[in-house]
Amino acid sequence: MTTTAAARAERLTRARKAQAERGVDALLLGPSADLAYLTGYRPPALERLTMLVLPTHGDARLVVPALEAPLARDHLGELDVEVAAWPETDDPVRLVGDALAAAGAARGRLGVGDQLWSGFLLRLQGALGAASFLPASAVTRQLRMRKDPEEVQALARVAAAIDQVVEGLAGLRWAGRTERDLYRDIEQAIRDTHDEFGFAVVASGPNAASPHHTATGRVIQPGDPVVVDIGGRLDGYCSDTTRTLVVDEPPPGFRELYALLHAAQLAGCAAVRPGVTAAAVDAACRDPITAAGHDELFLHRTGHGIGLDEHEEPYIVAGNDEPLEPGMAFSIEPGIYPRGHYGARIEDIVVCTDDGGRRLNTTSRDLRIVS
Amino acid sequence: MTTTAAARAERLTRARKAQAERGVDALLLGPSADLAYLTGYRPPALERLTMLVLPTHGDARLVVPALEAPLARDHLGELDVEVAAWPETDDPVRLVGDALAAAGAARGRLGVGDQLWSGFLLRLQGALGAASFLPASAVTRQLRMRKDPEEVQALARVAAAIDQVVEGLAGLRWAGRTERDLYRDIEQAIRDTHDEFGFAVVASGPNAASPHHTATGRVIQPGDPVVVDIGGRLDGYCSDTTRTLVVDEPPPGFRELYALLHAAQLAGCAAVRPGVTAAAVDAACRDPITAAGHDELFLHRTGHGIGLDEHEEPYIVAGNDEPLEPGMAFSIEPGIYPRGHYGARIEDIVVCTDDGGRRLNTTSRDLRIVS
Repeated sequence: MTTTAAARAERLTRARKAQAERGVDALLLGPSADLAYLTGYRPPALERLTMLVLPTHGDARLVVPALEAPLARDHLGELDVEVAAWPETDDPVRLVGDALAAAGAARGRLGVGDQLWSGFLLRLQGALGAASFLPASAVTRQLRMRKDPEEVQALARVAAAIDQVVEGLAGLRWAGRTERDLYRDIEQAIRDTHDEFGFAVVASGPNAASPHHTATGRVIQPGDPVVVDIGGRLDGYCSDTTRTLVVDEPPPGFRELYALLHAAQLAGCAAVRPGVTAAAVDAACRDPITAAGHDELFLHRTGHGIGLDEHEEPYIVAGNDEPLEPGMAFSIEPGIYPRGHYGARIEDIVVCTDDGGRRLNTTSRDLRIVS
Repeated sequence: MTTTAAARAERLTRARKAQAERGVDALLLGPSADLAYLTGYRPPALERLTMLVLPTHGDARLVVPALEAPLARDHLGELDVEVAAWPETDDPVRLVGDALAAAGAARGRLGVGDQLWSGFLLRLQGALGAASFLPASAVTRQLRMRKDPEEVQALARVAAAIDQVVEGLAGLRWAGRTERDLYRDIEQAIRDTHDEFGFAVVASGPNAASPHHTATGRVIQPGDPVVVDIGGRLDGYCSDTTRTLVVDEPPPGFRELYALLHAAQLAGCAAVRPGVTAAAVDAACRDPITAAGHDELFLHRTGHGIGLDEHEEPYIVAGNDEPLEPGMAFSIEPGIYPRGHYGARIEDIVVCTDDGGRRLNTTSRDLRIVS
């Protein structure tokens, strides 16, 4: 995270304002993108509770295991957040209660991080019987969904990094090697270009019909389509792109299917502009596939928001009437999956700008022939 | 996960028996080690709900996003668990409610996975107003804490894998390179020996006083102690070991400090046997350090259980009066951290056997000199 202390302080202020508007008395955030967004600190989620207590009125406090207090202080820097370190035999939930009580919020409406482990929420509910709990995203989604220019730059940088990996796919050997071999090569390429590896779907032949396929020992054959869906993290922000390859010569009917998919993805990207709803973008992308009679083969929503989390709001899905706004960033990733045969998907990250959608992934969307 | 379908079926039976004994009407498990332990399926935790509904009496059902249903079915295999796939615009919480209602458990006591995201728990609580919720670990900890012989073998295999990485540390160049450079080398070595990289603490000089230090651009110098705490995953099970190195010549006083730490770690390992409490093992390890006047420099508990999760029960910590039983596996990892100077830690995974503790990590615990 390269965000300055001043930018983080301003985010804390905006969070408190949003809390006040929504009648939330405090946020309780564990290790998560929400915590990273507000404080720059993102420890792994583990069994020792780390929790930012952010009262709408009153002092912010980070409850942190004593052994991680030095690390937390380094990350917080100048930020006006007090560190409350708890030794191993102490009860961190009591410290959270103390911080809330000090701010007069212990009986209030508390927004708990959506990804906080339930074991902690149950303990908080047990200890704070007079409080009520709601998801913190009621507050944080509004802040995180619209990326500021610095965040869009970070997303563009990490998109360029994953595009570099995509450009390298043609240089790999495919035929005769297993999905797992290719996974290893791609994992290494992601590591070489990102701070952290995220994930890699390498789904060949009939396996390509399973959108979240895990790479297996299947040997890739000439004539196989291969769906490659990959991502990593750079400076805290995530990449995510999908390209479909074919080894040597596509199987019968595949070129036509791919042309349809390509047209659908273009239509989805073209639909992006401020004021258009997420659902309308999903429909724009889905309609060509439905018109061709393949609606049941497009198994999933059109896309998901992306930022400090790989998947976040806004979701590009039927029923989501959220109007797009400049700064929203999300995937457009239609797929067609004829089960038992093969599958195909094309995915780019797109940012909504004042006058349309800007693709952050810029590699060719043409069908890629490899060998 | 190499567990057979028969073994998993038997675990489901044991879980239901434990539920009945504890008055729990159903378990609700998201992606987690609990789910992997019972079903062999471990998808990543994401915003689309995957949830095993395991009623004490009645049919088990796995609620799963439609696009992951093929993957889930492959993993479940012969296991007697029905798959309830939900399309993108459906509400999976309703499907969970249906599964509970079918088993007559919708108003019962429900054990929710400790690591389930709170956003899901809040929705479940909203939808199932007549139910009460408790942590699933009330049931699953008893099952998972005592490893069966097959699990102990898996832990021994992954311990051997990380020991191989430890043996390679002396072959790396340390002086003049950054913590991050070394992190990269070690990360690669863990990948080469495990299915998945877990983590690597590479903490040099004064940074070694921060137990969970994140590798930085600090250049490692002759005279630096370096704490290396590393782990990964193989066949679903985790490794975790720590060794302390010194580049060239230790700083004044360090050999004595290390000798004390070494003695404490030996004492901790020697204290392990059935019937001894976790707290007593912590005390056995801590006492030598306290006797030398350094109690405040041993910042953390002595250890944590390990298995399908890197950290799980039993925790080796003051106040935990759980008596050890054969099959329990945990770390013994005392550390001494004089802030501003340096730090040291030694960690092995130990399994409680009928007649004592068996170290799964078997590399030398002597101070390692590297260059």
